[in-house]
Amino acid sequence: MKRNEEHLDRAFMALADPVRRALIARLSRGPATVNELAEPFDITKQAISRHISVLEGAGLITRTRDGQRRPCHLDPAALEALTGWIDEHRLNAERQFRRLDKLLTTMKEEEQ
Amino acid sequence: MKRNEEHLDRAFMALADPVRRALIARLSRGPATVNELAEPFDITKQAISRHISVLEGAGLITRTRDGQRRPCHLDPAALEALTGWIDEHRLNAERQFRRLDKLLTTMKEEEQ
Repeated sequence: MKRNEEHLDRAFMALADPVRRALIARLSRGPATVNELAEPFDITKQAISRHISVLEGAGLITRTRDGQRRPCHLDPAALEALTGWIDEHRLNAERQFRRLDKLLTTMKEEEQ
Repeated sequence: MKRNEEHLDRAFMALADPVRRALIARLSRGPATVNELAEPFDITKQAISRHISVLEGAGLITRTRDGQRRPCHLDPAALEALTGWIDEHRLNAERQFRRLDKLLTTMKEEEQ
């Protein structure tokens, strides 16, 4: 449980940065090396490498070896674990709202 | 666009903390005051108030006035905006994987 909490901490923290979100958006269209990922950004390759390490540490991306290349890959299952957490609570909240709406409607009907 | 990026920064950062996630889980079961929210936690009411401010600043919760009480409410639509962002990139990535799988199958078939 504690381990899972730490994983959620790291993963949500990794998403809380516009450059890292742009890297995820790029990787969702296919794997890419650090050089390829750095190209469109106006920041150093070192800075991009650090952002990639954060994403890798959060389990959102993995790196494989392909000869001299070490492309980064997005892990859809890791993203799904995050939407799973959020959706569980969103659906609970929506259920609560519907229950409250129903209660208010019943109260109004009984008043009349 | 920039405004939206800042909103995503704040919202994902707000989720990157186990106490704030526990507060969201509690509020998904219905509104609660700061006192009610603080009760199960072994931290000061001040610390809980700060976490609530972070959640409020991120647009994930709102507060209403109900006489002397100021209950906090979870905003399901704000949570949905976050899963929307994640799901867009997850689905892209899954599509890419399927395309690659298909390509590899075709290549194998042509080899035989």
